[in-house]
Amino acid sequence: MAGLRICSALVTGANRGIGLGLVRHLLRVSNPPKWVFAACRDPKGERAQELQHLASKYPNLVIMPLEVTNPASIQAAAARVGEHLKGSGLNLLINNAAILLNRTLDTETLEGMSQIYTTNTIGPLLVSQAFLPLLKKAAQGSPGSELSCSKAAIINISSNGGSIDSIYGWDLLQVVSYRCSKAALNMLTKCQSLGYREHGILCAALHPGWVQTDMGSSAGHAPPVTVDMSVQGMLNVLSTLSEKDIGTFLDWEGKVVSW
Amino acid sequence: MAGLRICSALVTGANRGIGLGLVRHLLRVSNPPKWVFAACRDPKGERAQELQHLASKYPNLVIMPLEVTNPASIQAAAARVGEHLKGSGLNLLINNAAILLNRTLDTETLEGMSQIYTTNTIGPLLVSQAFLPLLKKAAQGSPGSELSCSKAAIINISSNGGSIDSIYGWDLLQVVSYRCSKAALNMLTKCQSLGYREHGILCAALHPGWVQTDMGSSAGHAPPVTVDMSVQGMLNVLSTLSEKDIGTFLDWEGKVVSW
Repeated sequence: MAGLRICSALVTGANRGIGLGLVRHLLRVSNPPKWVFAACRDPKGERAQELQHLASKYPNLVIMPLEVTNPASIQAAAARVGEHLKGSGLNLLINNAAILLNRTLDTETLEGMSQIYTTNTIGPLLVSQAFLPLLKKAAQGSPGSELSCSKAAIINISSNGGSIDSIYGWDLLQVVSYRCSKAALNMLTKCQSLGYREHGILCAALHPGWVQTDMGSSAGHAPPVTVDMSVQGMLNVLSTLSEKDIGTFLDWEGKVVSW
Repeated sequence: MAGLRICSALVTGANRGIGLGLVRHLLRVSNPPKWVFAACRDPKGERAQELQHLASKYPNLVIMPLEVTNPASIQAAAARVGEHLKGSGLNLLINNAAILLNRTLDTETLEGMSQIYTTNTIGPLLVSQAFLPLLKKAAQGSPGSELSCSKAAIINISSNGGSIDSIYGWDLLQVVSYRCSKAALNMLTKCQSLGYREHGILCAALHPGWVQTDMGSSAGHAPPVTVDMSVQGMLNVLSTLSEKDIGTFLDWEGKVVSW
């Protein structure tokens, strides 16, 4: 991760699973960011205790409330991050917050489909829109023209379950609402990569692997990848991203995932 | 279209554009279906006058209200189709109803994203669920085991604007909400093709071309393909579909569109 030297990063869904792992690893790199913003729905709640514990040890960690389906909450978080940065920009936005309902083609409903899409797809759109001014500022304040995650980037945590081509794991988990939301998130990533390129912002989607988290273990399965392996792998991948990778879909080991 | 011999078909969004064109062509084939069900939001409204005119000439055309975002409306339509079919099944369901908002990455909103997804992606899921018993019945009542549109099929009208790989027309129209909804619809099609195969139902997605409709002409562009060309092409493609094509994404000329 020698190449990843960022001044500031924000991670959504940061209170557990992959989000918490990303925060931990970002705090422990040899050149840690000046600010790591850890956003989650309820930072004072029981499910955010590990995050609170981390914050007591790392003064560069800022925990803040962020409900990615609530535009007012997103705006408030963006304003708060702006205040902390005092005129600097935000280098790295990781849209990680996501939910899953273990349903099948027969049991999916209007409400479930809508709920999953709102969190997993619309959330990353709205959060990116709100933090765009800070990302632009980071890009403008960074030397050189080459795109990178050290300069300014939006990374959307997707899933190979959203690969239309491969439809990984269908026999284990149908989760149609989740798959549709991630295919749509991949499309959003492609759109963002084209729309934000002119602002100096690199956009890409990552598949974190099948990870030992609450979500990964749903339906009683035993995922092969630990949070640490996944997060370390993804940060290694982020350190290598450049212009050629915009709008790409890579897994935690850097391999291309088909659309 | 020699190979397409269906007893019954239902088209959503049938009052104009491609939907109306599909109804017209289905009524005029040399072996017309016993029943063509033309579903739209407001069949008695001004925008359904052409459909009403057609119904006065073709006794095998049944017009019915169907709001694809309203589960109660969908159930009522399925019940009504069941009554008409008197114990027979429905061979062909064409999920054509779709909407578009001409927005950009910067102007998309929570409400717009949600509205487009509900109509363009959740609608086809819910309509397919509701008509599944009638589609299964058609498959069971059809001789032979080979999948085909003459036996039982769900055809989702998608768009090459939903191709993540190619992101056609980005410089002309960003329409992020529409692109995301169609990428998700392609994923839904793949899921349906795997889930419904065991019931003898073929599922595929079609790109109708850039067609001279209200939607195609939005933002002042001049589409190259007439409704008749598009619809005739798609019906030709449907007549050729078999087992090898399940979960595929083809354009109106039969060419594969990349995911």
